[in-house]
Amino acid sequence: MQKVSERAHHRKSVVLSSGGVDSTTVMAIAKAEGYEIYSLSFRYGQRHSVEVAAAEKVAAFFGAMKHLVLDIDLRIMGASALTDEIEVPKGRDERSMNTGIPVTYVPARNTIFLSYALAWAEVLGASDIFIGVNAVDYSGYPDCRPEYIAAFEEMANLATKAGVEGKTRIRIRTPVIHMTKAEIIGRGIALGVDYGMTHSCYDPAADGKACGLCDSCLLRKRGFREAGIEDPAQYMG
Amino acid sequence: MQKVSERAHHRKSVVLSSGGVDSTTVMAIAKAEGYEIYSLSFRYGQRHSVEVAAAEKVAAFFGAMKHLVLDIDLRIMGASALTDEIEVPKGRDERSMNTGIPVTYVPARNTIFLSYALAWAEVLGASDIFIGVNAVDYSGYPDCRPEYIAAFEEMANLATKAGVEGKTRIRIRTPVIHMTKAEIIGRGIALGVDYGMTHSCYDPAADGKACGLCDSCLLRKRGFREAGIEDPAQYMG
Repeated sequence: MQKVSERAHHRKSVVLSSGGVDSTTVMAIAKAEGYEIYSLSFRYGQRHSVEVAAAEKVAAFFGAMKHLVLDIDLRIMGASALTDEIEVPKGRDERSMNTGIPVTYVPARNTIFLSYALAWAEVLGASDIFIGVNAVDYSGYPDCRPEYIAAFEEMANLATKAGVEGKTRIRIRTPVIHMTKAEIIGRGIALGVDYGMTHSCYDPAADGKACGLCDSCLLRKRGFREAGIEDPAQYMG
Repeated sequence: MQKVSERAHHRKSVVLSSGGVDSTTVMAIAKAEGYEIYSLSFRYGQRHSVEVAAAEKVAAFFGAMKHLVLDIDLRIMGASALTDEIEVPKGRDERSMNTGIPVTYVPARNTIFLSYALAWAEVLGASDIFIGVNAVDYSGYPDCRPEYIAAFEEMANLATKAGVEGKTRIRIRTPVIHMTKAEIIGRGIALGVDYGMTHSCYDPAADGKACGLCDSCLLRKRGFREAGIEDPAQYMG
């Protein structure tokens, strides 16, 4: 018995971390399930590189075995408000956030992130890749939907040694995919997450303060409000 | 009629190019089918960066609209003879090449390459991604099998705007996947390919000459021999 439970407590997982609320909660869930955490973040020419610093704090908080930050250049791929000089939309109501695909969408971003996570998982012998995608608040992003994640998992198991040799089935874990922001925050608080570490804003000030008006800030603020918890983020003005 | 055929002649394709025999032949096939070529190569810390120079020559040869070279660091992902200081195997017979997964396998490499190609295809509005994978000579690589490619295509159409909005179905094209090396070379010669531009060696000399003994050189040499065509590559010694 001891042996089985020890082994369960040493399963490795790669956790994609943006330093935001969703991926931080996902890391808390992976930790609570007994996984060793290998935290993976990206610097991809985004304006909000302050999120990379947040991801580092989060990895340290959860005692990650390793925190890896990969530099990838997505700007070369063309237009998106997260990487180019297109204006980040501010003060939108929820209905317009959920209409069509937002300007902040980066082509194939989750596919690229998950592909790197898959490579690292194979090297580490990790069975699980955790990602904080959310189909509720980000319904406009094609690569946040459950059917996309299922297809990636299928592909991942055909792409890798483990899949071919039938050793370890890779699982893409999306524990917050169907939760509202308030539910995500509630779960995190129950697991002891300090959301003061996290960063959500698409368009922060030079000092790292959040704008409070972009889609991501608005969703965060509403989530804390609905969860009945005070948002520890620092907002401008 | 004219209009349809004109349109057919301006379909865009992203072609993954290593500067080797297979991907160069694939580019010739894409060109012959009337596609505009957007050539995509990677510098990923491999020892044989001379292949990047070959890919540039190949893109110019086929009049590519653009040739993009992305820097990605796969070394950070761990061990492989193509990126680390592990010895590249030399002088192996074909049977041992086809036993299990070779040391030259890079975890999830084709998945990462195809993910970037997918991002670029979405930005360009390209419908087809061409890749020179081969299930005959590289039977040990999980990500060279038709079932892997089919799964990637399925995932790609769920990952992207085009897929969600039902506009353009992305196709992953693998025209040489079932060909022997001799057949690939024969097809390329018929399409006017000058294989003097290409580079195949896993372990070239400083002056770019091929070793003649690694798996890739051996497969290339046998391919030209079986095709009855003189190999224009320059070998050491």
